[in-house]
Amino acid sequence: MGYYHILKQAEAVEYARGIEGVFPAGAQLTSREIGDGNLNHVFQISDPASGRGLIVKQALPYVKVVGESVPLTLDRVRIENEALRIQDELCPDLSPKVYAYEQELALLVLEDLSDHIVMRRGLMNRGRYPFFGGLIGSFLARTLFFTSDLAMDLQEKKQRVKAFINPELCNITEDLIFDAPYKKSRMNIFEPHIRDAVERIWADTELHLEVALLRDLFLTKAQALLHGDLHTDNIFIKPDSMKVIDPEFAYYGPMGFDIGTVIANLLLNYSGQEGWSTDAQERIDYRRYLLDTVSDLWTQFELQFRELWNGHAADRMAKTRGYQDLYVARLLQDTIGFAGAKMVCRVHGFIHVADIERIEDAAARERAQRIALQIGTALIKRNRSARSIEELLDIALKASEDESERPSAD
Amino acid sequence: MGYYHILKQAEAVEYARGIEGVFPAGAQLTSREIGDGNLNHVFQISDPASGRGLIVKQALPYVKVVGESVPLTLDRVRIENEALRIQDELCPDLSPKVYAYEQELALLVLEDLSDHIVMRRGLMNRGRYPFFGGLIGSFLARTLFFTSDLAMDLQEKKQRVKAFINPELCNITEDLIFDAPYKKSRMNIFEPHIRDAVERIWADTELHLEVALLRDLFLTKAQALLHGDLHTDNIFIKPDSMKVIDPEFAYYGPMGFDIGTVIANLLLNYSGQEGWSTDAQERIDYRRYLLDTVSDLWTQFELQFRELWNGHAADRMAKTRGYQDLYVARLLQDTIGFAGAKMVCRVHGFIHVADIERIEDAAARERAQRIALQIGTALIKRNRSARSIEELLDIALKASEDESERPSAD
Repeated sequence: MGYYHILKQAEAVEYARGIEGVFPAGAQLTSREIGDGNLNHVFQISDPASGRGLIVKQALPYVKVVGESVPLTLDRVRIENEALRIQDELCPDLSPKVYAYEQELALLVLEDLSDHIVMRRGLMNRGRYPFFGGLIGSFLARTLFFTSDLAMDLQEKKQRVKAFINPELCNITEDLIFDAPYKKSRMNIFEPHIRDAVERIWADTELHLEVALLRDLFLTKAQALLHGDLHTDNIFIKPDSMKVIDPEFAYYGPMGFDIGTVIANLLLNYSGQEGWSTDAQERIDYRRYLLDTVSDLWTQFELQFRELWNGHAADRMAKTRGYQDLYVARLLQDTIGFAGAKMVCRVHGFIHVADIERIEDAAARERAQRIALQIGTALIKRNRSARSIEELLDIALKASEDESERPSAD
Repeated sequence: MGYYHILKQAEAVEYARGIEGVFPAGAQLTSREIGDGNLNHVFQISDPASGRGLIVKQALPYVKVVGESVPLTLDRVRIENEALRIQDELCPDLSPKVYAYEQELALLVLEDLSDHIVMRRGLMNRGRYPFFGGLIGSFLARTLFFTSDLAMDLQEKKQRVKAFINPELCNITEDLIFDAPYKKSRMNIFEPHIRDAVERIWADTELHLEVALLRDLFLTKAQALLHGDLHTDNIFIKPDSMKVIDPEFAYYGPMGFDIGTVIANLLLNYSGQEGWSTDAQERIDYRRYLLDTVSDLWTQFELQFRELWNGHAADRMAKTRGYQDLYVARLLQDTIGFAGAKMVCRVHGFIHVADIERIEDAAARERAQRIALQIGTALIKRNRSARSIEELLDIALKASEDESERPSAD
C-alpha cells in the first residue's frame, strides 16, 4: 500500500479497520464518501453496531477549479498532520484526534466529528453558541501564543518556521485574498448587480495601499503558527463542543490573520442575515448576537492571551514594561485589517460563502453583498488607526443600517 | 580528506594547490595563518612568484569566548557559501569569489583580498573613501531588494527563507545585541568610569520597550536575505574597490538591520574620533566626512532601491500607489533603530570595537563611550517617529557637541 495511488473505498475501509482500539474485531463497517472531492477524498467509516467511526482523508495531487485540474502539493498533508498534532497538544478538547498519518499515501485517519455540524450551517440556521467566544478565544490564544517567540525556545521556533514553509498553499491565499479582488481578473466572480461596488474597489487606491501592507504582513511576519484557513466551514460545533479542523494552510504568519478570519466569517453571516429572515426584529436580534459573539471572542482572546503572557512567557524581554500592551494593540489592528480582506474576497472573489451566495432572493442577496463589501472595505481602511474592537462593531452596525436606508432599486 | 578534522597548514596548502586555474604548476606556495582563530582557521596561501593567492577558511566546531569553548554549528559554512554566491551574483564587483566549498570539512576557498584593508582600520587612520556610500548603497539596495518578495517569485522566496534558517548564529545576535546590554549580565563588559551611563540604560524602561520592538522585528520580519553582520571589520576596502565578506550570520530578517549595522559602525568611529586626534578642527572635519558618508550611503541606497523597485519589481502589488514611499519610510525607521541598538552593544556589551576600545587616553576613551551611548540610545528612542536621515545626523552632531561642553572630571 506504500506508493501513492488514489484509494478505493474498500481500501479506505480496510485501512480504517487496521487502526487499533477503535472498531471491535469483525465489525461490519459501512463507508460513505463525504466532502466534494475537489481537493481531497474523505471517507466516513462507521460501525453501526458500536456507533464508532473514523474519517479517512486522502489528499489528491491536484485541485479542481472551474473544471480544470491544477497540481497541488501532497506535502500539505504532512503540514496538516503536524499542525493538528500541535493544536491537539495545546487544545486537546478543541482539535480532532489524529489516529494515523501515512506520508506515502498522503493519508490521515481522524476522529469522526459527525455528531457536530459545520458552524457555517449552524449560523445559517440562526444557531446560538454562547460558549463559542470563549472556546475559539482559547484556541486562538493558546495556539498563537505557544507557537510564538514569546513562549518558545527561539531556536526551536526557527526550526518550526522551517518545517511549516508552505509555499503552494500560501500562494493560494496571496492570490485569492490579497490580489485578485483588487483588479480585473478572471479570478473575480461576482453578480452584475454589484458591478458598481466592485468597480469602486478596483479604483480605490487608498484601499489598495492598505491591502498591499496587509499582504506584506502575510508574506513576511513569521509571528506564530497559523491555522491559515480558519473560516466557519472548518469549525465543527454542537451545543457543548467545538473542534477546529483542516489546518493544511498552516504556516508561520501574523496572528491577526487567524483571528481576523474567524471574525470575517461571523460578519459575512451578519451581512447574509438580509436574506435569511423577513422578520426585521429577528434579523436585528441575530445580528446583535453575532456582534456580541465577535466582541466576546476578542475579549476572551485578549484575556487569555494576556494571562498566558503573564504566566508562561519564556522570553525575558516579554516582561518589558509596555510591550504587551503595544503587542496586543497591534494584534487588534492586524485582526481588523485581515478581517476586512477576508470579507471582500468572499463576496466578489473566487470562493464565495454560502451565508450570502445561497440567498435566493436576488435583491436580498445584493443587499447582503453590499453590506459585506461596505464592512470589509471599511475595516481594511481602518486597520492601522483602530484602537478598540468597538470600532469594528460600529462599522458593522452602520453598514447594515445604511443598507436598510438605501433607496430600493425597485 | 572527506570527514571533518581540523586542517593542518600543509593540508590547507595542498587543498589550495588543487584549485584549478589559480597557481602555476609547481608553484612554491607560502602560507600564513591570519585571523584570531576564535571561530575559524584562516590561511592565506600565496605564490610569491606569480603574485597569486587564495584564502582557505575552515570553520571550527566551537567559538572561543572568555577562555571557554562553546559549540557552534558548522552549518554556518553552508550558509556563508550560499550567501556569498547570491551576493556575488547580485554584486559581482563587491563580493569575494568563492573557488570551492567542501561541506564535510566546513571549508571555503575564497579570493584573496590582501590588496584591500579592513575598513575599520582605514577609518581609524582617518582614511576617506568618497565612493563608499555609492558602493555600499548599491550592495544594500541590490542584495536586499532582489532577495525580497518585491523581486522574487513568492514561492522561491519561501524556499530561500527555509534554506537560510540560521538559529545558532541568530541566537548570538538576539542575546548580545537585543538582550544583555539592557540588564545586569556577565555578558556586559564595560569600564567603571561609565557605570552611571550603563545603569541609566538598565533602568530606562522607555528604551527597553523600543529594544523589545526592534528585537521582535529581528525575530519575525522575514523581509530579505541579510548579511547579518555588516560591520566595518567585514568590509574590505582600497581606494578603488570595496568587498563585503563573512556572511555567516545570513538569514531572512528586516532590511534595516543590515543598513543600520553599517551606519552604526560609521557612528562608532565618529564617537571614537575623541581619541584619535588632539586637533579639534581635524576631529570636526573627519566627523563631518563621516556624517556626509552616512547621508550619502542612505541617499544612494534609497535612490537605487527605488530605481530597482520601479524597474524590476516582480510583484504586481509593488506598483500600488503610495506603497513604495511607505515601505521606504519604514525602512528608514528600522534602520535608525537598529543602528542605535548596534551602537549600544558595542560600547558596554560583550564585543567592543577597536575604534573606541583602542583609545589609549582613558578620559578620551570615556568621552567616546559616552558619545556612542548617547547617540545609540537616542536613535533607539527616535526610531518609530523618525522621518528623515537628517534626524540621525542631528542626533550624532548634538552628542559630540554635548560631550565637548560637559564639565571635565579633572
